[in-house]
Amino acid sequence: MAAGFGGGVWYGDAHASTSKAGAVPTTYPFRGEHQAGIVTPAQDRLHFAAFDITTRSRAQLVALLEAWTTAAERMTQGLPAGRVGPTEGAPLVPPDDTGEAIGLSPGGLTITFGFGPGMFRDQKGRDRFGLADRQPDALRDLPHFSGDQLDPARSRGDLCVQACSEDPQVAVHAIRNLARIGFGTVAVRWSQLGFGRTSTTSTSQATPRNLFGFKDGTLNVKAEEVAALEKHVWVGAEDDQAWLAGGSYLAARRINMHIEIWDRQGLLPQEQIIGRTKGTGAPLSGGTEFTPLNLTEKGSNGPLIPVDSHVSVVSSERNRGVRMLRRGYNFVDGSNALGGLDAGLFFIAYVRDPRTHFIPLQATMASNDAMMEYLQFTSSAIFAVPPGMKPGEHVGQALFERP
Amino acid sequence: MAAGFGGGVWYGDAHASTSKAGAVPTTYPFRGEHQAGIVTPAQDRLHFAAFDITTRSRAQLVALLEAWTTAAERMTQGLPAGRVGPTEGAPLVPPDDTGEAIGLSPGGLTITFGFGPGMFRDQKGRDRFGLADRQPDALRDLPHFSGDQLDPARSRGDLCVQACSEDPQVAVHAIRNLARIGFGTVAVRWSQLGFGRTSTTSTSQATPRNLFGFKDGTLNVKAEEVAALEKHVWVGAEDDQAWLAGGSYLAARRINMHIEIWDRQGLLPQEQIIGRTKGTGAPLSGGTEFTPLNLTEKGSNGPLIPVDSHVSVVSSERNRGVRMLRRGYNFVDGSNALGGLDAGLFFIAYVRDPRTHFIPLQATMASNDAMMEYLQFTSSAIFAVPPGMKPGEHVGQALFERP
Repeated sequence: MAAGFGGGVWYGDAHASTSKAGAVPTTYPFRGEHQAGIVTPAQDRLHFAAFDITTRSRAQLVALLEAWTTAAERMTQGLPAGRVGPTEGAPLVPPDDTGEAIGLSPGGLTITFGFGPGMFRDQKGRDRFGLADRQPDALRDLPHFSGDQLDPARSRGDLCVQACSEDPQVAVHAIRNLARIGFGTVAVRWSQLGFGRTSTTSTSQATPRNLFGFKDGTLNVKAEEVAALEKHVWVGAEDDQAWLAGGSYLAARRINMHIEIWDRQGLLPQEQIIGRTKGTGAPLSGGTEFTPLNLTEKGSNGPLIPVDSHVSVVSSERNRGVRMLRRGYNFVDGSNALGGLDAGLFFIAYVRDPRTHFIPLQATMASNDAMMEYLQFTSSAIFAVPPGMKPGEHVGQALFERP
Repeated sequence: MAAGFGGGVWYGDAHASTSKAGAVPTTYPFRGEHQAGIVTPAQDRLHFAAFDITTRSRAQLVALLEAWTTAAERMTQGLPAGRVGPTEGAPLVPPDDTGEAIGLSPGGLTITFGFGPGMFRDQKGRDRFGLADRQPDALRDLPHFSGDQLDPARSRGDLCVQACSEDPQVAVHAIRNLARIGFGTVAVRWSQLGFGRTSTTSTSQATPRNLFGFKDGTLNVKAEEVAALEKHVWVGAEDDQAWLAGGSYLAARRINMHIEIWDRQGLLPQEQIIGRTKGTGAPLSGGTEFTPLNLTEKGSNGPLIPVDSHVSVVSSERNRGVRMLRRGYNFVDGSNALGGLDAGLFFIAYVRDPRTHFIPLQATMASNDAMMEYLQFTSSAIFAVPPGMKPGEHVGQALFERP
């Protein structure tokens, strides 16, 4: 009944076909030491949006972050985006929720905010909101990598929002309502839906498959690896700007896969490009999925895990021990002009410092990885992800407060 | 384990996060009087693809339909697309399944095939495969409607495949494997993902919401209405070509919604455009969701259900009693150039005859419906959907057999 939506839990009338979150909790806490949606067990569906800031007013920007924080907290807890809701209030005033998630479970919705380089300086390097001296050194547009064929219209962004849920309609609803609230202050620059997660961020999850048909994310940093998270994911208190301590960096890359060409490869060549078996995901050096890689074990024709295989090229062993927390999603965005599917992986990684944990790895992959023959990078963006919020705080509050 | 995939049920190791089909059966029968995926309770996710036929060989086309039928039946029953599967067989031969659905439940997967006008005649009207005399009179490209701004690259098509599942990765996997099997005979012309169904095709389902935030599909023809299906959905034995008896016509229309503008409308204007309340979906003439429309009941300012409201304009009362079976899906395909979401409704309707059941309704809607201000039609296609298959038959077999 509409009367129930004003302030109550609006998924009260959730029905079987839309409340099948299974083992995933219906809601996650919005506030905490870190933002949710990073180590939270990866939900199955994604809507990611990058925004341009269209105002020159710092006050208006802060007001937006306050309003976004309030709305995001409400939505993650299963409430409408605004107090009045989608079906109440004055008849001639637009509802403060768009309504398409009425009756749906939040499905573990998390909403994660990031700040791009453009929030600090414009393209000519000029201070935009009096924040230039607080721009982290590591927050710079990613360099050009070999193989990049980026679409500028879906790269970069001053702000980003990652919405993840078991239900895509809930994730879309979240982004749409934040865009609605931001009207006049920000505009959507690009957005991306993902329909299947390709990473595991908790040991409680089975490893999913990407559109090459292989398990993806076996060696991901997981929520349970607290020491590894401190080392590889969370920005330390002494790393750079104090406001970012407890936060992270989000690198996003839209990776088109030439799946039609891939599908013409034999099973063995596919496995040699990946470095794992397709069935169980075991490394070609033997064992089962979680058996450590043995990069030196020789077969009759060189290492069992080929030197140019993906797992070898990006292994922490060959990259000064660095690891990333990946949170990517498969996508299909219709077709391309050649009669193939416009499909691939929307790669998201959370890292402590892109200069050490992402850029070198991406560069070595671009140059050495046999998988590159089947990939095309069409979007690229980097964001600083502020830490979690205490009660009453808005996202990034410490950035705007002078110490 | 990979060893199990050769011929067995490959979702044997389905895990919680990907086997949450809830109340939906895991598999539906593929064969029967009608194709599955029409009156089957609408699954939550869609991948729809239209194909161009690239061969001139009738034999090759028939071979494709045989191969598609075999693969589709296998996939709907939870098997790999081909006998060997994604991880077995000769190492240098491409696997006959792409693998990304290993471990996933079919989630009620249905695969439904349709034949476009282009399968019978080319754009100049020339017979393509010796089938021209069997083209149903009703199977003609849809006319131009007021408000159409069609993208030719994602309109029309010689063949179509509708894959529906509770799991989008399963639906994508189905289309992808059919496209792979069709290489050299057909090429994907366009494809569309839908993330949330907007219609109810069974009384067992609650009515979902479209991106206007309103319930959609309340008055849909439902599986339980056997007489109405005979009257409005299934092609009769005497209607036209005998090979199509027991089939239907599928009209597809990609409808962009100007959701940012919609979101600036007050609740009352929104409800007056739709003709129903946003909360419960009750008609503005009173009652609850399933109360019949009262199109004549007057308020202080004309009919309570405005004459130009959507439900009034498309009502069977005002359209010679015709009804459609709709099976649409919400979509968001990233952003448009104006900083809005490229979002809307991918409309699918199954009707007995488009000349009586779709074209007049679409024309009156295009001319009279207040909702048109918020819509833009960007794709249009029509297909004849052959009847279901008996064991051993391929889809459309009667079309190719001389009586």
